[in-house]
Amino acid sequence: MGTFQVELKKVVDDSYEIEVGFGLQQALISDLKGGLVKGITKFAVITDSIVKELYAEPVLELLQANGYQADLFVFEAGEKSKTRKTKEEIEDAMLEMGYRRDCCIIAVGGGVVTDLAGFVAGTYGRGVPFINYATTLLAAADASVGGKTAVDTPLATNLIGIFNQPEKVYLDIAAWKTLPQRQISSGLAETIKHACLASREFFDYLKEHMEDILQVEKEACEKIAEWNCRVKYEVVMKDERESGLREALNLGHTVGRAIETVSDYRLLHGEAVAIGLVAEVRLAEKMGYVTAKEREEVISLLKRAGLPTSIPDDIDCEALVKKLYTDKKVKNGKLRFVLQKGIGAVVEFEEGVFATPIEEETAREIIFACR
Amino acid sequence: MGTFQVELKKVVDDSYEIEVGFGLQQALISDLKGGLVKGITKFAVITDSIVKELYAEPVLELLQANGYQADLFVFEAGEKSKTRKTKEEIEDAMLEMGYRRDCCIIAVGGGVVTDLAGFVAGTYGRGVPFINYATTLLAAADASVGGKTAVDTPLATNLIGIFNQPEKVYLDIAAWKTLPQRQISSGLAETIKHACLASREFFDYLKEHMEDILQVEKEACEKIAEWNCRVKYEVVMKDERESGLREALNLGHTVGRAIETVSDYRLLHGEAVAIGLVAEVRLAEKMGYVTAKEREEVISLLKRAGLPTSIPDDIDCEALVKKLYTDKKVKNGKLRFVLQKGIGAVVEFEEGVFATPIEEETAREIIFACR
Repeated sequence: MGTFQVELKKVVDDSYEIEVGFGLQQALISDLKGGLVKGITKFAVITDSIVKELYAEPVLELLQANGYQADLFVFEAGEKSKTRKTKEEIEDAMLEMGYRRDCCIIAVGGGVVTDLAGFVAGTYGRGVPFINYATTLLAAADASVGGKTAVDTPLATNLIGIFNQPEKVYLDIAAWKTLPQRQISSGLAETIKHACLASREFFDYLKEHMEDILQVEKEACEKIAEWNCRVKYEVVMKDERESGLREALNLGHTVGRAIETVSDYRLLHGEAVAIGLVAEVRLAEKMGYVTAKEREEVISLLKRAGLPTSIPDDIDCEALVKKLYTDKKVKNGKLRFVLQKGIGAVVEFEEGVFATPIEEETAREIIFACR
Repeated sequence: MGTFQVELKKVVDDSYEIEVGFGLQQALISDLKGGLVKGITKFAVITDSIVKELYAEPVLELLQANGYQADLFVFEAGEKSKTRKTKEEIEDAMLEMGYRRDCCIIAVGGGVVTDLAGFVAGTYGRGVPFINYATTLLAAADASVGGKTAVDTPLATNLIGIFNQPEKVYLDIAAWKTLPQRQISSGLAETIKHACLASREFFDYLKEHMEDILQVEKEACEKIAEWNCRVKYEVVMKDERESGLREALNLGHTVGRAIETVSDYRLLHGEAVAIGLVAEVRLAEKMGYVTAKEREEVISLLKRAGLPTSIPDDIDCEALVKKLYTDKKVKNGKLRFVLQKGIGAVVEFEEGVFATPIEEETAREIIFACR
């Protein structure tokens, strides 16, 4: 009987840059020429059926015009495509076309595209580099920092995936102009969540400039893109493995994700999160952390952003309560919630602990109050 | 237009211990009690249909008897099960049974089980810890060091996966006693490969103790388990991303993997590698790196280990030549081979380059010589 010690201690540098601007395709090409992914000349551009024509094909053509080998891999738009099956189809298509380890993946699209493509990149040949060219506000708010990539399964959203950092992220605000109003609103839910959990100043900025943002005014949009990055970055940096503080980013998501699933994705992610934020701010109020006035401020801002603030009639609230148990924060069979503390902070229950056990009865009560 | 810098530089410590011994179930339990995976009380034991009764169920019962929650996840034994589909089935079963991030996976079995379970662990909830309880010589030789986890696809073996390090590896030599002779021999192919590429002393030890090893004598088996770990560790440590030196571990595999696939997995991995080692030592001889005597030493040792040393009649050698092109080392459409230098070393063609382009005609000639 003997033992053998495998020493694997090393310094890993996953740092990257986020570029915010109007129309960044040329910037991407310049960066590639400047050695963003050294030695790689083969690019798999992954996109969805909506973004394909507007942004992915132009990026593809620019790549080819600049002497790179590039192919397009397109899947049907929508959260319903964020599955292991779609991942498998992309992998098989890439294998079929001879892609090996010496390639780079470029994700062009919203959060579904960047989540899925980042996951494909992480497991293709045990990892190839990837670049995110994000075209939605939601991707700017949610998917640009944190390295989370994943797919959904019938039983849970985002539970199969890896942490994987991109080589660079482009947030193209010009692309937001092409989004339907409903998508803009949906993206604003994560933005409002960030303000609720981290910055009263950001929240006040949103109150003041909501109309500019809905009109996709350049200055206001750049400002919120940067705020979003900063809030998320500060939270994620302090806690990379989502053990403590990072759970704060789950504000609104305990109920939100359950609504999203129970609605069978008829509600967009941001719409479900908006309702989740309302449910959870009510819970915080009930626990004494938020005043009635602050609760109304949150609900009012969500409404001005064009978001729903109550649970649609056709959603079965009991099914919703049951679904809460698939949440990642569940521990020893108990529901756990993040609670906001006034506006711009979350409650730290004990050192490094930002989620607290809540009785099912209390959760049920709050959910029925959102009807 | 602005940029935002995401700084993600950190020290990662993936070090772990390999324990070699006879009957290590109790050692596993002691380690868990001693805090091997702190705070975790829920274990998913992944195994195959052959190992289930012999080793996985006893481990499961011990876990349960010691107050841990544990369930068994079993798939059909064999390389053909190492697929995305099997991975998906295990994930769904784990989700169904309420497994979340607060669990640990224990892989009990050979290389297929540890490859698959390590990949499941790496993407379940974006990563849960895993422990390898290896029951075969092949797993001891091949799967205990290097962190490679993967599944096969119809188009390529091991191309979808991640690098993922276990919390600990147990090499239970007692389990080798239950292996059919054919499996023992198959595991010895990787062992002989390690000796050929890294250590004349190891090779001589194998020559001297082959009978003891085939009888699974404790001392000789512990010795070769340790030799295997050391050789692989030294190679892998020096080159974690398989760019240069790590390719040396591919000795015998360029031809070996092709034979394995063309035989539609009728040949075991080690059997195919054995024939691959013969083909590639002949190639090395042709190129002047190995003497006729050394070539015969290799062939003789493989024979004594009960391994095949020529290509079976029913394998189409032309199909084999074609299949060589799916090898990961292929660059710009050219076949590339690792060549041994005498016994106990490989040729370094230029600094950090351990594979060299070989004309198809030469490869064909060598393959037909192995008929």
